[in-house]
Amino acid sequence: MSNQSFHPPVRTLMGPGPSDVNPRILQAMARPTIGHLDPVFVTMMEEMKDLLRYAFQTDNTLTMPVSAPGSAGMEMCFVNLLEPGDKAIVCQNGVFGGRMKENVERCGATAVMVEDAWGSAVDPHKVEEALKAHPDAKVLAFVHAETSTGAQSDARTLARLAHEHDCLVIADTVTSLGGSELRVDDWELDAVYSGSQKCLSCTPGLSPVTFSERALEVIKNRKHKVQSWFLDLNLVLGYWGGEGKRSYHHTAPINALYGLHEALVILREEGIEESWARHAKNHQALRAGIEAMGLSFIVKESERLPQLNTVTIPEGVDDARVRARLLEEYSLEIGAGLGALAGKVWRIGLMGFASSRKNVLFCLGALDAVLGDLGAPIQRGVAVETANRVYAG
Amino acid sequence: MSNQSFHPPVRTLMGPGPSDVNPRILQAMARPTIGHLDPVFVTMMEEMKDLLRYAFQTDNTLTMPVSAPGSAGMEMCFVNLLEPGDKAIVCQNGVFGGRMKENVERCGATAVMVEDAWGSAVDPHKVEEALKAHPDAKVLAFVHAETSTGAQSDARTLARLAHEHDCLVIADTVTSLGGSELRVDDWELDAVYSGSQKCLSCTPGLSPVTFSERALEVIKNRKHKVQSWFLDLNLVLGYWGGEGKRSYHHTAPINALYGLHEALVILREEGIEESWARHAKNHQALRAGIEAMGLSFIVKESERLPQLNTVTIPEGVDDARVRARLLEEYSLEIGAGLGALAGKVWRIGLMGFASSRKNVLFCLGALDAVLGDLGAPIQRGVAVETANRVYAG
Repeated sequence: MSNQSFHPPVRTLMGPGPSDVNPRILQAMARPTIGHLDPVFVTMMEEMKDLLRYAFQTDNTLTMPVSAPGSAGMEMCFVNLLEPGDKAIVCQNGVFGGRMKENVERCGATAVMVEDAWGSAVDPHKVEEALKAHPDAKVLAFVHAETSTGAQSDARTLARLAHEHDCLVIADTVTSLGGSELRVDDWELDAVYSGSQKCLSCTPGLSPVTFSERALEVIKNRKHKVQSWFLDLNLVLGYWGGEGKRSYHHTAPINALYGLHEALVILREEGIEESWARHAKNHQALRAGIEAMGLSFIVKESERLPQLNTVTIPEGVDDARVRARLLEEYSLEIGAGLGALAGKVWRIGLMGFASSRKNVLFCLGALDAVLGDLGAPIQRGVAVETANRVYAG
Repeated sequence: MSNQSFHPPVRTLMGPGPSDVNPRILQAMARPTIGHLDPVFVTMMEEMKDLLRYAFQTDNTLTMPVSAPGSAGMEMCFVNLLEPGDKAIVCQNGVFGGRMKENVERCGATAVMVEDAWGSAVDPHKVEEALKAHPDAKVLAFVHAETSTGAQSDARTLARLAHEHDCLVIADTVTSLGGSELRVDDWELDAVYSGSQKCLSCTPGLSPVTFSERALEVIKNRKHKVQSWFLDLNLVLGYWGGEGKRSYHHTAPINALYGLHEALVILREEGIEESWARHAKNHQALRAGIEAMGLSFIVKESERLPQLNTVTIPEGVDDARVRARLLEEYSLEIGAGLGALAGKVWRIGLMGFASSRKNVLFCLGALDAVLGDLGAPIQRGVAVETANRVYAG
């Protein structure tokens, strides 16, 4: 058995998340632990809720971080809104729509699937048809930014359709929060979850969530207890609710929350719209370089996420070998394809702190060298220069 | 909205957890984030599993940290072992037995309660009667170390009785792991969960768990899907299982895991039996000081947890005022009573890194000053000296 402290290498994280973490966040996480009922901690939590409201662009009272990763945030939304016998319309255009279906069914509810191709946005026409065909549906669920494909769906339109048919909206914003336009209140999203490790550039392990008053009314008037004790909002609210006395529910992950707080302070310093613009700018530069090499994107331009660039692997190129060389020789992590796209694409993340000119130029330079060395059919020696012209222009 | 970084005060944490965190652990958490599928991270995870096996004193293959706090670890045990229509015998002698009951019922199973007084151990005779009266019970669940009362139950005897009646054993070891004797294999515990923030002295947010082969057989042969996607061991195993290819389940909380790894390395350096002995020694010193002041424990000596000292608040003393003065003037946190014991007791933790001579003397000195100043009916000026004699002897 090893008895050594663990010293990780220094990587550049340009996969689908975790993304590069701002050193300020790592420092924050190393600050002294205090009690989860300490008045000073409670003050920090209240600030955190305000900062999260800013990030989500919402005034929802019920806005907080779940003490577990994004998939627990997803589960919190489904188990609190759905009861046995309910029906939910679930849009699937990648891996995470499938996970939503699993969640619906494990609640004892029925999932009506609306399928779109992997790499496409959710089609609002199909959604409208499903809403018409299933007037008893209680929830419409979709992924705003599909981390498995890099496609962005039109959350505003989907939510409008859902409300026209008296459905609540569950939206997965794991990869969009902080990286591309997301307006929870303007778009009227009812139950929204995200992750700490994408465009907030924090370490993984926390899931920011926000719930509208409409959603809260449904949760407070449930007929059955929520099947998960840990994720039951009626209980969690006693701790995070912020009204009067705080009652113990579970022990919050204190130091991880220090990190998320710092990540949100950094976002606030930059400004949310400025952060969206930075993600867009770095995407333009990376895209120009990628295309100059002769590589292409699987998502069409109007539906492309700036923070997650899904690039087709050229014919004859060994996916695993390229990624291994990038990791070993450059300490650079890019993402593999997931599910149906495994072996067919790379996912290059430009999320949060990792969305920088430094990373764009480094990644293009490393890809140019490794692909060239492996004899891949690319245009060599032009990617970095092309990206630089985007920044200069 | 505040836009300031958060700088917590430096506390001494002697409540029911989180406990003082070894600075080595905080440093470990601030190390560079790497990907959750990075080969280096995977190696660290394998070490972690070995280190956890050492802490639990088990050879169980399925030993790992859940990516969420102890209450999610509890839920993982219940939702994986129980199915709708099952019956579980649940021992309640404090807050956490009640939480177990909630978990059983939310699985669609029936809970048969075995009640003991708060502050007492679980009575094996009552358990045996319940096992005889309910031969169809599938699970016996109990809390090894009740964090709400400071009482320790005889896990070995309870597990033996359960197996004689063909029941699986779920044991809550949140507060015992690392702090007092716990032998998962020798005692034949089947599904065991703990927390990172008690006697492992790590930050809160992770729940080490271990499952016997017997438990695993039951889980693999379930009739219904586990109701929680996030906590479904059949899925989690694909990532933590350690056999062959690792498939993505959720994004592990990388930096929090660095911290737990370091905490376990520290435990291994000291030795598990040496850690138990240190907890016992510091308890003896604290106890001598507390009793010299004229205060008493609510748990009888043979059932007392060394790591959690539950002390009766003297008549006429204002609980909240004492704790507030300790926090404000000494930056010292001790725990309040929980549930039925609220306002009646203090819970003084001597857990992990906080189980030290320094903390024992400091706490006794601070209590002596504050209680004396408030005119509490205590013997003044003797506690620290009395504790020192224990260390000297």
